[in-house]
Amino acid sequence: MRYDVAIIGTGPGGVSAALTLKNRGKNFIIIGSKQSAKVSKAHAILNYPGLPNVSGQELANAFSKHLELAGIEITEDRVSTIYDMGDFFGIQGGNEMYEASAVILATGVVTGKAIPGEDALLGSGVSYCATCDAPLYKGKDVAVIGYSKKEEEEAAFLSEVCANVTYVPMYKEATDLPDKVKVVNVKPSEILKVDDKRVVKSDGEDIVVDCVFVLRDAISPGQLVPGLETDGAHVVVNRDMSTNIAGCFACGDITGLPYQYVKSAGEGNVAALSAVTYLAAKK
Amino acid sequence: MRYDVAIIGTGPGGVSAALTLKNRGKNFIIIGSKQSAKVSKAHAILNYPGLPNVSGQELANAFSKHLELAGIEITEDRVSTIYDMGDFFGIQGGNEMYEASAVILATGVVTGKAIPGEDALLGSGVSYCATCDAPLYKGKDVAVIGYSKKEEEEAAFLSEVCANVTYVPMYKEATDLPDKVKVVNVKPSEILKVDDKRVVKSDGEDIVVDCVFVLRDAISPGQLVPGLETDGAHVVVNRDMSTNIAGCFACGDITGLPYQYVKSAGEGNVAALSAVTYLAAKK
Repeated sequence: MRYDVAIIGTGPGGVSAALTLKNRGKNFIIIGSKQSAKVSKAHAILNYPGLPNVSGQELANAFSKHLELAGIEITEDRVSTIYDMGDFFGIQGGNEMYEASAVILATGVVTGKAIPGEDALLGSGVSYCATCDAPLYKGKDVAVIGYSKKEEEEAAFLSEVCANVTYVPMYKEATDLPDKVKVVNVKPSEILKVDDKRVVKSDGEDIVVDCVFVLRDAISPGQLVPGLETDGAHVVVNRDMSTNIAGCFACGDITGLPYQYVKSAGEGNVAALSAVTYLAAKK
Repeated sequence: MRYDVAIIGTGPGGVSAALTLKNRGKNFIIIGSKQSAKVSKAHAILNYPGLPNVSGQELANAFSKHLELAGIEITEDRVSTIYDMGDFFGIQGGNEMYEASAVILATGVVTGKAIPGEDALLGSGVSYCATCDAPLYKGKDVAVIGYSKKEEEEAAFLSEVCANVTYVPMYKEATDLPDKVKVVNVKPSEILKVDDKRVVKSDGEDIVVDCVFVLRDAISPGQLVPGLETDGAHVVVNRDMSTNIAGCFACGDITGLPYQYVKSAGEGNVAALSAVTYLAAKK
């Protein structure tokens, strides 16, 4: 099945794009987590016009309710790469490959820098997607560097497939993992290739494995869409939210500062309408 | 008194800018009508994220309530011209002149073209501001071309000052005016200067007066701010909502398509934060 549009991300930008595409009668998919953690975890939001003094959870719930009333369902998956196939986009999720004529990137911004060595070894013993690459490391040793508690699910899944799983939590909450998973509280400083092994250097002992899974909420836009023009952690966009790749639009934090909910929502609306215009011109 | 920022307009862009400036502790003024007619008159708005299926009046009321809770009061006035004074802006309202270090234009877009002759005669027998120019036409004859019912107040006010007032409603609702005001239902086609009189040509009889007041909800951005770079009815803006004039920002419909509530609200937020950055750099 080929969708008209695939929206990647479920924060204010993605939700806004989805509502507008729905109004315009487009056949689209919105992929991400059920609620954006960046919204639901906010303490208080004072400047989202029309919803005075909401907590992050209240705003996230208002978005969820709005999607539900509009009959829009979120496809829970994690997109690792989007390929520009010329006439359409191939969207690599953890569970399957999706196809869409246009894409809207609403994945938020990557907070925190890459670990030295991470970029160079990506695809060669460093992976962003446990679901995608677990089969390659059946019976082998892996490490998981998890930037949020929800990555523990991925580590638990890996422990069913791999011989040994070492988990490095990059957050303060207590971990809740199967006994089989070894939790190591260190600060990774570098990832190295030593012979056919990968080594996580840190302020503690070396972690020597076959693959290092680095799991963050969002991956950097240049890694997400090969060929995308970026400026640091951000995608370069025009006023109509188009990027340098025809049919690829972006909205929200990924397009740059300020990181504000209503800015993202406004851009999602514009990205959706620009995608509609793009689809009409393509026919 | 010199404000940090003056926001011109009370639609979603202006309201959003005001809420964000409030959060940032700025000393600002927001000038316009109590509620934006373009919001309150909308039938149904399906894609303002978080407020599902609201009527225009409900959205307008949600904005009003949010402003009230934030302790923000709208200054009801109509701005006719904004002068760039170098270090600050002089803002000509109907009742007084305001001063601000930065301005945010959120006046919406002018719908409908200028009447032929209107632009050429502006300031010479054609006026956009009854309150400003009424004293010049004391005891004289004037015509008012009113684009919305609220302009009837201006015509009534002029009838207290001028000898004869002819009112041309450009809308379908019934008029409700003092007996002294002559209502003429015609379609103006041109405004001419004939000797020292101004003549409104139409599909009916010529209207011969000393001044023609053309009263619309918004005036074109180039007329509002002399020197502003425009593209047709729109202000040219950068991604941070800055214009070609330092300290002058814009948001909402005035910056171009799409004309969408949440797009305007998002841009208002960005314009406000860019104004904050501008003020900080100025010090």
